[in-house]
Amino acid sequence: MIEQAWAELAAAFGARFSRAEAVRRNHASSVTWLPAEPPDAVLEAGTTEEVQQVVRICARHRVPLIAFGTGTSVEGQVNAPEGGLCLSLRGMNRIIALNVEDLDATVEAGVTREQLNAALRDQGLFFPVDPGADASLGGMAATRASGTNAVRYGTMRDAVLAVRAVMADGEVVAAGTRARKAANGYDLVRLLVGSEGTLGIITELTLRLHGIPESILSGTCAFASVRGACDAVIEAIQSGLPLARVELLDARQIAACNAYSKLSLPEQPHLFLELHGSPAGTAEQAARLDVILHGHGGATPAWAANSDERNRLWRARHESYWAAVASRPGSRGVSTDVCVPISRMAECVEETRVDMDAHGIPGTIQGHVGDGNFHAIPLVDPGSPAEVAGMADFLDRLAARAHAAGGTCSGEHGIGQGRRKYMANEHGLAGLAMMRAIKTALDPLGILNPGKMLP
Amino acid sequence: MIEQAWAELAAAFGARFSRAEAVRRNHASSVTWLPAEPPDAVLEAGTTEEVQQVVRICARHRVPLIAFGTGTSVEGQVNAPEGGLCLSLRGMNRIIALNVEDLDATVEAGVTREQLNAALRDQGLFFPVDPGADASLGGMAATRASGTNAVRYGTMRDAVLAVRAVMADGEVVAAGTRARKAANGYDLVRLLVGSEGTLGIITELTLRLHGIPESILSGTCAFASVRGACDAVIEAIQSGLPLARVELLDARQIAACNAYSKLSLPEQPHLFLELHGSPAGTAEQAARLDVILHGHGGATPAWAANSDERNRLWRARHESYWAAVASRPGSRGVSTDVCVPISRMAECVEETRVDMDAHGIPGTIQGHVGDGNFHAIPLVDPGSPAEVAGMADFLDRLAARAHAAGGTCSGEHGIGQGRRKYMANEHGLAGLAMMRAIKTALDPLGILNPGKMLP
Repeated sequence: MIEQAWAELAAAFGARFSRAEAVRRNHASSVTWLPAEPPDAVLEAGTTEEVQQVVRICARHRVPLIAFGTGTSVEGQVNAPEGGLCLSLRGMNRIIALNVEDLDATVEAGVTREQLNAALRDQGLFFPVDPGADASLGGMAATRASGTNAVRYGTMRDAVLAVRAVMADGEVVAAGTRARKAANGYDLVRLLVGSEGTLGIITELTLRLHGIPESILSGTCAFASVRGACDAVIEAIQSGLPLARVELLDARQIAACNAYSKLSLPEQPHLFLELHGSPAGTAEQAARLDVILHGHGGATPAWAANSDERNRLWRARHESYWAAVASRPGSRGVSTDVCVPISRMAECVEETRVDMDAHGIPGTIQGHVGDGNFHAIPLVDPGSPAEVAGMADFLDRLAARAHAAGGTCSGEHGIGQGRRKYMANEHGLAGLAMMRAIKTALDPLGILNPGKMLP
Repeated sequence: MIEQAWAELAAAFGARFSRAEAVRRNHASSVTWLPAEPPDAVLEAGTTEEVQQVVRICARHRVPLIAFGTGTSVEGQVNAPEGGLCLSLRGMNRIIALNVEDLDATVEAGVTREQLNAALRDQGLFFPVDPGADASLGGMAATRASGTNAVRYGTMRDAVLAVRAVMADGEVVAAGTRARKAANGYDLVRLLVGSEGTLGIITELTLRLHGIPESILSGTCAFASVRGACDAVIEAIQSGLPLARVELLDARQIAACNAYSKLSLPEQPHLFLELHGSPAGTAEQAARLDVILHGHGGATPAWAANSDERNRLWRARHESYWAAVASRPGSRGVSTDVCVPISRMAECVEETRVDMDAHGIPGTIQGHVGDGNFHAIPLVDPGSPAEVAGMADFLDRLAARAHAAGGTCSGEHGIGQGRRKYMANEHGLAGLAMMRAIKTALDPLGILNPGKMLP
């Protein structure tokens, strides 16, 4: 009986357990086009042991359990389609250990990436994975987040050295070590990273850090066409140029950013670029890059003269989703995130633009093109059933386009609710059966984040 | 009935199925200190479909099935402690696709790393993971191999983009895509990589490639102490120097290499180093490195003047295990491979040397110190029960030392047979239970490589 679970949780956690309407609504998915589905109750856990206690109560009473960090996932990962308990880990926000010599840090799951970076700055270190939002690191691990720096520093798959997770039976698994590599059994860390809270609840994690580069060079480069910009990126990647960031913004996205973030860039496709290294190293990279950019019709790059200008540029990039939405007042934006082999990227971006125009779907295209990962952002009037239906069809075509190009429907946002229907195409029936077998083995009662990821 | 399985396999595969004593003996572990345990029969598969057929016959008759590449694993991974069928994939040695633009290649599991690199050379590309032996890429994936380049290019965990694997029920799972990142469900690729043939049989894999660097600078640097060499490496890593290779060889290892590979290095601890980049880039790296090496008592590095000298150096490093063994005629060497956080490495190496000396165990120490991964190589008279027992105790102490330092008993060789007893300490009982649950879910009959990895 679920009421029995609520009674036990209320008795054990007092005011940290709540069934208040406002609290429940604050813990449903909000930054997504999917309808918000609030949980029946919310609990703030403070320790791994408390998470164990909660999991055991929920298991005993078969209560669905949804782990919650900052609620910034975009595919409905924190929705509660079957009701149940939202377990918030925001209060678990201690930095447990900072090992400067080993370039790693152990944090509780609720620590956010900006909180960690603030703590690292004095040490000359930084944590590179940057999905835009100031997400919790536990949530970023659970969704295998990435972002603008992934082309150089990798994603959460690469950044997580170890995790502590509470499994569906209430046991704590400590997976991974602080050693940089291991051939010591099944890769439990990588299995938990990206499992979207369906296999276990990550309560602590150890992350790889990097030294803040001595020299950081950021700039923009205008192109006559999206194809030219993509081809320049492909050549740069192939030639081994260690780009730290390389972001495409199409002409419509630039127009939106100019208006929203007060830039004054020509309304053409642009690359936003960043180079990391020693002063001599970034200068050499910039010189090599210059030749490549010109070779594909790029203008002379405008390098930021100082860190203020650099920060302004990346703030505009981080605000670009909101800039897109603001460019069509009253609309909702859907941030898609297909990822394809880079040789197929230019054609995939172009076809997606043609698709949007042919179907009268307004929107922008931007993305982490060094990884072959781009965001087409259709802007839809949520009050128009025709537009909403047209957008759903567009999403299906986009996923099919990515699959046909040898890629994936999601480079970084995850499966959540909306993409479950693509999983069979994505992995084949045998792959899906393998995932289901793992899920059933590790969560036989199906209490962990039901209705997510697996169709 | 196992005889029924043999009859079906013989009927289906003719001369590619063999129960001959010599063939069986050739497919047991040989490059390990563990006793060879030959299979009951050997079969050469030519295609994924044939592997499916074999798996289905073995499943029907409950015959243990051991995948075999080149037989160069060192922890008994290809032994047949419960008998059964050795399934050789050596004949599956086609390079299926080479995508130069995307820097990836798809190969059959039996392709070796040297075969792949020979095919890549004309394209200006290379595959960096280098465990020394010319191992099959399928076997390297199955054991999560790494080697001298891992500090810069990562291990098989990072190198494998996708795999095709035949599961215990005969179904083919195609896991992963050619896209560089994905947030699309459980990370089946990373689960299969390093699973040592206990979850599925990898028949094809897609690998990340890299451009051959324009400039490669290799050299040696002599130190007064192992501690000085380790501290220099730690500082170089911390300062963000992108070392491509950094190998420690202690004084005894240098003496062994001088004799075996005709070098004439001073008998002191050395680092063997390699830098990759543009000509200006490697020159700048070398200058920065020079300062760091000197700061920890290093001599002026001797940089190789040409590619012949460079190849000679790395050949000696690759022969160093054999050099160690040759330094004590009649001995067997056991190549250990603990991996610890780099801040603990110097102390761990020193304690290991003290341990060897205190227990009268001759041997050398070398390793991939940029990863905190080192090989202590005790040299044991296999005819002396006292030495063999002493060596076994030494291995237990070494694993405990790595665990105490926050590391792992195996950085790259895997668990196989000999390290199963360390798995509980390595992962805790909950972690081990999680691995067992996965194994049972995916191979309920336990036919895939029984007696390996899981205790």
